[in-house]
Parts: sequence; structure tokens; C-alpha cells
Amino acid sequence: MIDLRSDTVTKPGDEMRRAAAEAAVGDDVYGEDPTVNELEAAAADAVGKDAALYVPSGTMGNQIAARVHTDRGQEALVERESHVYRYELGGFAQHAELQVRTYDGGADGCPTPEQVREGFVEESLHRPGTGLLCLENTHNVNGGVAAPSEDVAAAAEAAHDLDVPVHVDGARVFNAATALDVDPADLLAPVDSVMFCLSKGLGAPVGSMLAGTESFVEDARRVRKLLGGGMRQAGIVAAPGLVALGNRDRLHVDHERAERLAAGLDALGDLSAPEPDTNIVLVDTTAAGLTAAELLDRCEDEGVQGSEFGEYTVRFCTHLDVDDEDVEAAVDAVERALSR
Amino acid sequence: MIDLRSDTVTKPGDEMRRAAAEAAVGDDVYGEDPTVNELEAAAADAVGKDAALYVPSGTMGNQIAARVHTDRGQEALVERESHVYRYELGGFAQHAELQVRTYDGGADGCPTPEQVREGFVEESLHRPGTGLLCLENTHNVNGGVAAPSEDVAAAAEAAHDLDVPVHVDGARVFNAATALDVDPADLLAPVDSVMFCLSKGLGAPVGSMLAGTESFVEDARRVRKLLGGGMRQAGIVAAPGLVALGNRDRLHVDHERAERLAAGLDALGDLSAPEPDTNIVLVDTTAAGLTAAELLDRCEDEGVQGSEFGEYTVRFCTHLDVDDEDVEAAVDAVERALSR
Amino acid sequence: MIDLRSDTVTKPGDEMRRAAAEAAVGDDVYGEDPTVNELEAAAADAVGKDAALYVPSGTMGNQIAARVHTDRGQEALVERESHVYRYELGGFAQHAELQVRTYDGGADGCPTPEQVREGFVEESLHRPGTGLLCLENTHNVNGGVAAPSEDVAAAAEAAHDLDVPVHVDGARVFNAATALDVDPADLLAPVDSVMFCLSKGLGAPVGSMLAGTESFVEDARRVRKLLGGGMRQAGIVAAPGLVALGNRDRLHVDHERAERLAAGLDALGDLSAPEPDTNIVLVDTTAAGLTAAELLDRCEDEGVQGSEFGEYTVRFCTHLDVDDEDVEAAVDAVERALSR
Amino acid sequence: MIDLRSDTVTKPGDEMRRAAAEAAVGDDVYGEDPTVNELEAAAADAVGKDAALYVPSGTMGNQIAARVHTDRGQEALVERESHVYRYELGGFAQHAELQVRTYDGGADGCPTPEQVREGFVEESLHRPGTGLLCLENTHNVNGGVAAPSEDVAAAAEAAHDLDVPVHVDGARVFNAATALDVDPADLLAPVDSVMFCLSKGLGAPVGSMLAGTESFVEDARRVRKLLGGGMRQAGIVAAPGLVALGNRDRLHVDHERAERLAAGLDALGDLSAPEPDTNIVLVDTTAAGLTAAELLDRCEDEGVQGSEFGEYTVRFCTHLDVDDEDVEAAVDAVERALSR
Repeated sequence: MIDLRSDTVTKPGDEMRRAAAEAAVGDDVYGEDPTVNELEAAAADAVGKDAALYVPSGTMGNQIAARVHTDRGQEALVERESHVYRYELGGFAQHAELQVRTYDGGADGCPTPEQVREGFVEESLHRPGTGLLCLENTHNVNGGVAAPSEDVAAAAEAAHDLDVPVHVDGARVFNAATALDVDPADLLAPVDSVMFCLSKGLGAPVGSMLAGTESFVEDARRVRKLLGGGMRQAGIVAAPGLVALGNRDRLHVDHERAERLAAGLDALGDLSAPEPDTNIVLVDTTAAGLTAAELLDRCEDEGVQGSEFGEYTVRFCTHLDVDDEDVEAAVDAVERALSR
Repeated sequence: MIDLRSDTVTKPGDEMRRAAAEAAVGDDVYGEDPTVNELEAAAADAVGKDAALYVPSGTMGNQIAARVHTDRGQEALVERESHVYRYELGGFAQHAELQVRTYDGGADGCPTPEQVREGFVEESLHRPGTGLLCLENTHNVNGGVAAPSEDVAAAAEAAHDLDVPVHVDGARVFNAATALDVDPADLLAPVDSVMFCLSKGLGAPVGSMLAGTESFVEDARRVRKLLGGGMRQAGIVAAPGLVALGNRDRLHVDHERAERLAAGLDALGDLSAPEPDTNIVLVDTTAAGLTAAELLDRCEDEGVQGSEFGEYTVRFCTHLDVDDEDVEAAVDAVERALSR
Repeated sequence: MIDLRSDTVTKPGDEMRRAAAEAAVGDDVYGEDPTVNELEAAAADAVGKDAALYVPSGTMGNQIAARVHTDRGQEALVERESHVYRYELGGFAQHAELQVRTYDGGADGCPTPEQVREGFVEESLHRPGTGLLCLENTHNVNGGVAAPSEDVAAAAEAAHDLDVPVHVDGARVFNAATALDVDPADLLAPVDSVMFCLSKGLGAPVGSMLAGTESFVEDARRVRKLLGGGMRQAGIVAAPGLVALGNRDRLHVDHERAERLAAGLDALGDLSAPEPDTNIVLVDTTAAGLTAAELLDRCEDEGVQGSEFGEYTVRFCTHLDVDDEDVEAAVDAVERALSR
Repeated sequence: MIDLRSDTVTKPGDEMRRAAAEAAVGDDVYGEDPTVNELEAAAADAVGKDAALYVPSGTMGNQIAARVHTDRGQEALVERESHVYRYELGGFAQHAELQVRTYDGGADGCPTPEQVREGFVEESLHRPGTGLLCLENTHNVNGGVAAPSEDVAAAAEAAHDLDVPVHVDGARVFNAATALDVDPADLLAPVDSVMFCLSKGLGAPVGSMLAGTESFVEDARRVRKLLGGGMRQAGIVAAPGLVALGNRDRLHVDHERAERLAAGLDALGDLSAPEPDTNIVLVDTTAAGLTAAELLDRCEDEGVQGSEFGEYTVRFCTHLDVDDEDVEAAVDAVERALSR
């Protein structure tokens, strides 16, 4: 079975497993796990921030950020198809009691400065003021689209002009930087905090990083405890995370494979699969006369798995556990699925 | 000064004041205020519901409804320019921890059944399920527009098919029923609860009513206490509220005046004021080369007050304290304001 | 029927009703109700604070105070039998997400400085820091006991030394000042905010006041809106509230009647009723071989009402609608009830 | 350095590290991690419940339980020195908006049935009803004291008679079962849910288990996601957790060592260290004329670490990384520390 459902499904290889087995550990709740500390320093460095915090999931990272940046009774400006709005169980309302206001970020999910200003609400007797702007880069639901540095910078500048901090849900931010051919630190320099996942394209088994200023991370550590994210000898999973950080340099390979996969599927005639920015291929099944669910059922019989992303939209992700042959085989399998 | 800022500014007349002075009262927290009880019965009757609760404000009525209808961790589907979303300090997130999802209800603010289905979110491991559909009738920000019975019924049916309860922010629902020439009970029959204000078009000094089933109102009473809305000898203000209920039958007069006001302003040439549905006149100041704020400043000098509703939008409301002469005088005053 | 259940049951007399009928009013949400403004100024003055806010209930006043004084994720130190802890539906947790920590304030409900220090929690990675100390004066459940100025001052000083603000639930704080024979402003000088009820001993039909610094009240106004406590022509009920303020000077009469009532009941032999501090008489029914509920049932048949305050504890309140003859009659009625 | 600060400091040994390195894994958010599934089944079995959920921390397990068992606006009955009340950042108020009510559980932290009934609050218009009883076994702050099965059963029965569910914070529940010489499933049979830590006495690097009925765990899985506790290839840390489960049988060794440690310290003359129930030794430093902090400073110089648990109370924990020689050496070190 070729598993293209998500880049979260990668299984740790020998190097990561060895790292887990040999990790120097300590009690991270006391701040004494050397591997976690090393990972946090490396992660901060990778995104050009002062400090970083290891968290069990990307959801926790985003939720902590919302809570730390805001006061109670504010609004958060989020993209209408973003992960924080769609897939985190309404956490902004539940953990931080924020009212969300959505913007339509278009293909790359990044608002224009004008949209930031339009979405901004001035605090008044009747209105919660805007307390946070949330970006997502790459934008998952739109197909792993990377928002360019200048657009991120312009949105962040517009927010900062209004005294609104900016958080990036960068679950796949290294894919964005790779696609844009920029240093992640440069891409993220205009924003206040970023969460990125070790467990997606980077291939680690567990964990995400939340990065920002020293004082932001200090506050974040306390909210992590509140949410139950404080782990003990976390070095065991942080060690594979450190290995995973090294995988930043090979993401272009996933992107090339995604490009070949999209081209191959598009060439089949009945499917439409535009050239992807990164490692996420969205496939429109309309012309094939099949719903996404129907196509996925047939694909599964032929040995390929993907995700339903809309009634006529299938998502296929390339990742560390998918090689060139898998891509060829996946196209063949989808062709068989279509021809049944 | 002719005060057209809002229909909330009406001052109680002799009948209401006499009612206050002579009200039979008791401790309403014990359920012993006969005037409150009478008002609650009359209010329930007026909107065709089983029971009703007296609350200090429309905001409290809407917030109680959201809390009673939902479980924690759900979504509420609200209109993008609705009062509950814009002007209640993010209360849905704060009191009920609901994530809001907005629909664009168009001119009358009422969603199509299709929009209800599109906005509906099925509860899953990742997504908060939709727990409430909120309508607003008449729709304030859009200019006091009345949503017709059949559209309300269709939206409510779509929601109910998805097991989603429907609440109407009916701050001005009697204006809607008047404009539509329907029995309010018929207009509201398809929905589960409704809040209406005694203090707007009906002219009472204080208070709103929240109506629904007996069990809904029983739960609402407890949430009212939680929010601090339990009052003691509330009959003093409920008595003018009872008088105010009698004003339902004269709302057509406010509507006719609003129509004349709009026509008069529109005829001035530099302002655009479409014919209103009810008692709210929206005026576009663009052609006059003035912002709303600028026009309002000049109007105030000429003896007329209105509200800024957008950079180039002024709102004028007719109400109990505005008579035919005031309408004439207001048009003259605005004309002078424009000609300066 | 002589109603001694609570001092909340008083019905407004002619003067209050006339005040309601003749009140100058405006839209208080716009800050334009002259009577409300006058009441707020008079209330601030009465308790020696800079500013005050009119709220529909004492519960709302206390809940607003908790929210304004604290940040999210803190603790509030409250008396174990206090109103905010027992009778406000867990509002501190629900509105302000505060964890409560209780102290046992003894007869007058006021903690010693030592208790304040012991209950104080220093904020840490694992612990919410203490963000509020709440006092109640007089203490209702303990029987209307007044905490002396020096004890209040000592508790407040201990709290302030720890940077913890102090709020007084002063629903009956004028009863306390009367019993202590001190100026309420002196009694309250050491604390940061106070809520007092117009609707208890002072006899107004509706409302309470929340007082503190200008900036506290400004923030409180916004939270009042969030909770749905913004009323329109509130002058109608604020006017009787102004009359009620004048009743501060006659509370000693209620106290004397309570003292006679307690003495009379105690002299019956089967009941124990210690001399009250203020207007609340607690009666122990144990020696009579009756539960509180049983005694109250019999009393009701004899024309007297009280409240059940414990399995063997009855509460009787004197108030504006109870005169000397009522007190005599009440003792006689209880005697008949006992002798059945 | 002999680290007796906590049983959380244990470092995984070869077997656990090998298990991590060789773990079969999958994406646990999809429910596909075979090792996590195996661990959850084994954990459920170990405590005699239908199902269990792997969570990153004990705090998260307790907080999820509170949220799943209760409705909003309720009270939780918790022990006055319990972990959920003292060390979880007020999470019951923050995540579940519960008002806490404390009981004094005495030495073993378990309330009597009478205390349960006294602490129970019947839901009313004014009062939040009790929605949860929380026990802690062993009780940490009181010194690892085990509450006997019959006391747990009696407390749970009293709660169930009032329709109140019971959750056990069983961070060290296998220590309790060992000390009591009972099957953990029997000890926990009367309660509805239990959290236990793999990372304390059992020695795993990361994680805790939350167990209850199938439907409880299904709900808990969703709240875990909300809190950000969903991990991907969690088998890497679950595998050492499975090994850790095997350590249940050796806890008596830690207890014997704690007993010897306490006896040794007590015999020094200046310290009082009563015989411990389990692996936690509380030492009273009063007679030595030293505060806990002073003694700990000296101990650290002599090569032993402990925790400050009160001004004159030190806590020493025995655990997997402390052997017989360490116990001897620790006593000697403390003796040297005292004699300086």
C-alpha cells in the first residue's frame, strides 16, 4: 500500500530510532532534558527566533500561541480555510475565549494588507478588539501553497501597524521556504511567533515546535503545562526530532515527486491536478464522473491511499516514505482505478 | 434636537410612567412579581411561544439563548454583519465558548437553505459541530430589512433537518412582522427561540424578552441569574414594558415616516437613500463628497442627530419620539447641512 | 403575612414610585441618562470611591469586579460561606475562569492577615497566582455580622502587600457601617472596589452599584455590556435607587427591630436566637425538636415567613416593610407555631 | 548525585530504549499505531477498565476527565491538598469552567461518605450542582499515603448515590495497590475513571493513561485533541510505556527502600520521618533547627537531592534509579549535612 494520505504517516527510520535509543535525557518539566534543550535551541535557530518550545502537537503549539498573544475578550483574524479554524475543535474560543473573524486569503492563504486592515476591529464598548492575526504557510487546504516572503511581510506590517501580533501556523513552513527558495528565518522575520511540525515533512514520530521571543516562550511554557503538554524524559522523542530537523534540506525531493505525481495524474485525462507548490497534490475528480470518496475507494483496492478533501477533491501527499517508484506506481494504480 | 440616532433613545411617556408608578410588584427572583409574570405571559403570546423571560438587555437575551441551545465546544452559524457577531463583545466565545462561523445573508440577512447546509459542520474528532443557527430580523446593519416568513421558514427547516436549533435576534421583530404584514407568531413559528426588545420601536425604557419552550425558558432563567440579570421588584420597569407591547400596532407609522424621510433625503440629490423596509434609513453620502462623520457633524449643528454606520453610510432611525413635523424638519436640516 | 424571608422583598413606597414616574431619563448605553449619572455619582460618594456603575443585580456587580481585577488563570480567595462562592452559580469560574480558594472567616467572615497570607498562592509554573481577595460585609450566611474597620483594613493591607486587589461584596455594607457606627467611606477606604445593593435594606426595587477608581469603573462598564447589563432609560429604576440611598440613615431602626425580634424569639425558650449585629436574625430550632423546614411550615400557617438557612437554622430579616407591630406579631406567631 | 526529588526523574534503561528503537508504529491520530493500541489495551486491563487512552501527561489525563464527566457550570469536589487543585494551574476552572469545592481528606486524602454528602451541592437556581468527585491515590502531598479499598468504595458509593461520577488521580495508583496488597482493578472497581502515570514509579520516559468506559474514552479522545495531546507515531514512547507497565510488580522494592530511608533519617535524631506507606518519605526538619530549604542546600552539597514540600518539610522519593546502596549513602549524606 502506498500511503499518500498525509505527510504525518511517515515512520521513523533507523537513524531516528537509534537517536531515540541513545538519547541523553532528563526531566524536561524541570528543564533538565539535554536533548530537548538542544532541540529547542536548534529549532529556534532554524526559524530565526530567540527561543523555542517542544510541544506534543501542532494544535497545541497554535493554541498556546493564541493564548499567550491575546487578552481575554479579543478577536483573532484567521483564514477561512485554515487549520486553526477548521480542524482544532474551536480551540481559540475554548482555550482563549477569542471570537474568530475570517479573511479569504486566496490561493496562498495570505491576506493582503488591505484585508488585514478591513478585518481589524478597534476595541470599543461594543466590540472586541483584534488581538491576533494568524497566517498558515504553506496553506494546507488550498494544496500546500507557499505564501511569498513579501506577502507575509506586508500582512505582518499591516498587523503591526495596528498593534496586532502575528502568529504563523507553519506546520509545513520548511516546505514553504524550500518552494520559495528563501531562508526560513527570512520568511519568518516579520512575524512574532511560529509553530512548525517535526512530524510532517520532516518525518519525526512526535512533536512540534513553537518559537518566538524569550518572553513569549517563557509564557508559552506555562500554558503548555496548563494544557497538559509537559512531558518528562521527552528526549526520547526529541532526539528523533533533532534528526528530523536535518530533513529540511531534502524537502525539494518531495516537491519534485509531488510535481511528477500531479503531472502523471493530470495526463490521465479524467483528472485535473494542477502543478503543486510543495508536497501536496490536489486532484479534481469531476471530469472522471466520480466523487472523491468513490475514487479513493477504488484507489485503495489498487494499493494507493489518499484523503478526501472535498466532494470532488482528493489530496495526495508526498513524504519521506514515498520514493520515485512509489510515485510511478501510484499513477499506474490511479489509472487502473479510473478504468474500472 | 431631533434625535434619529437610534430607536433606543425614546423616552417613556405619561402612560408608561404612570404604569411604573402604579405597578404591582414582588420579588421576581422568587417569581413573585405579578407585573413581570404578566409581561412574560403577554410577551410569549405576542410571539407565539410557550413562555418568555424578562431580561435587562437584548444582548443578555441573545447570549442566554446561545448558552442554553448549545453544548460546549460547538459552532454557531451567524450572519456576517449581525449584532451578535459585531456588537456583543464576542460573547458567544466568552459565555458559551462557541466558535462562530459566518454566512452572508444578503440584504435581508437571512441565509438560504443552501447556505445553512454549507455552513453546517458535522461534529468529528477534529471539528466542532454546529450547535446553533442565529438569524436577525429585521437586520440592523443592512438597514432594518425584514426577512420574509418563507425565507425564515426555509432556513429554519434546513437547520432543523441537521438537528440545529434556531434563535432569532428579533430586537426589531415586530417591525419585521409589520413590514411583512404577517402575524409575528407565524413569522416565528419555525424557530426555537426569539429575543425581542421592549426598548427599541416599542418604546419601553428598559428590557427585552427571550421566548421559547417552557423548558428553554426554565434553563434561560438559570443562565440569566449566572449573568447577573435577576432583578427584584422588576415590575417597576416591566409595567412600562407592558404598555410598550401595545405599541406593536403603531410601528407602521414609524415605517411610513422612515419612507418619507428616505424619499426626502434622496430627493436632495447629493445623498442616496433607498426606500426602507421599516424604521431604519441608510444614507449613502458618497455623492455629496462627504464622509458620514462629516455629514453628521454638520447635521448636529443643524439640529439633527444620526449614527455613523460606515465611512460613507449614515443611519437615521424613526421612532416613537419622532413625529411628522420632525421628519420634515430633519430633511430641511440635512439640506442645510449639505449646502454649507 | 409578615414577610421576613429577606430584605430583598421590600416594595417601593410612594416616594420611590413618584421618583420613577418623574425621572429625567436618557439612553444610558450612550451615558446620557441624567438620573443614572446622578445615582452613580451619589453612590460613589456614599462609599468614598471615585466612580460607580449601576448594575441590574449584586451578582453582576461582584462578577464584573472579579473579571476586571484579575487576569485569566488566577485564583480568587473567597470566604467559605460567602455569597460569591455559594450563590452565584460558580460565576468566578465561568466568567473569569478563576480557581477559588476558600478561607474560614469566622463569625464576621473577615480573614485575619495571617489567613490572607496563608491563602495566597505565588504564581509559578504549576500554580495559578492569587489575583483577588473577596470580602463580604455584612456576612449574610453567618447572620448579618459586621466586620470591623480595623479587621477589614488589616486584611486589605495583607492582600495589598502581596499585590492582591480587594473587592468587598457589600450587598449590605451600609448595615455594617451602621452597626459599627462608622462612615462607610472609612470602612471601605482600604479596599479597591465595593458592590452594594440598592434593593436590600435600602429598599429600592432594582439594582446595585459597583464602585472603585475611575479606570476600574471604565473597565467595569465594558464587562457590564458583555454580561448584558447595559440598560437604556434606566433612570426609571435609578430614580427610586436615589431615594433608596437616603434610607442609609434609617437602617439602625431595622437593627433595633431585629434585636427585639431575636430577644423575643429567644425568650420563647425552645429557640435560640443570639443578638444580631444588624438586620438578620438566625434562629436555631434544635431545642424545639423541629427542623427549620418544619418550623417555617408552621410559621407560614401563622402568618410569618422566613428562610431555611440550614437543617436547623431559620433566617428572619427585618427591613423597610416591617414595623414595630410586625415584630411583636411575628414573635406571637412563632410562639403559636411552636405550641402546636 | 543521588536524585530523590521525585520519581519522575527516572531515566529509561536499556530495555525501554530498545523498545523505543524497535517499536511498531503508525499514525495514532488515525488510531493506527499498534504499539499505542497495545499499550491502551494493557493499561485498561491493568486497572480493570474497558478502555484507556494514552496522554502526554498526568495533568492532561486529569483535565480531560474533568471535562468529560461534567457539564458546564458545575462544581468539582477535590481534596484540599490534591494535585488537581494545587499543581494544575487551576485547569478545572479554565478548561471545564468548574467551581472547585475542597474537602479535607485527612492523611490518606480520601473523604468519608459523610464528607462527600456534606460537600455535595444540589443544583438550584443559585447553585452549581456537584458534577465530579476527585480522589487522589496515593496522596502525594500527604506523603504517598494509600487510601484503602473500602474507603475508596465508600466514598464512591456516596458519590454515586448522589449521581456524581468519581475520578481517581492515580498518578501513583500502583504504589497504592502494592502498599494495600490489592489488585488495582479491585481498588478501582468502584470509580468511573482513573489516570495513572507511566512516568513516575513505573519509570517510563513519557506519558500517562486515562481509563474508563468505552464511551468515556471515546469522548476523552476528542478532548485530548482539543488540548493538543494527539501525537502521531507515539509508539516510540508508548513502547517504553509498555515495558514500564511490567514494573508494577517491583514497586514493593521502592517501598521497602523508602521505609529504610525513613528509618535511617529518623534515627539521626534531629529529623522526624514517619514510616511511609509507599515510596514517598516526608521529613520534618523542625527539630534540626533548619528550614527545608536550608537542609536541602546542605544535602545537595553532600550529593543528595530532595524537594521542598513546606517550610519545614522535605520530600524524598525512591524510584527505579535508586538502589539499596543509594539509600545507605543518602542517609549518610543527610547525616553529614546535619552535622555541618
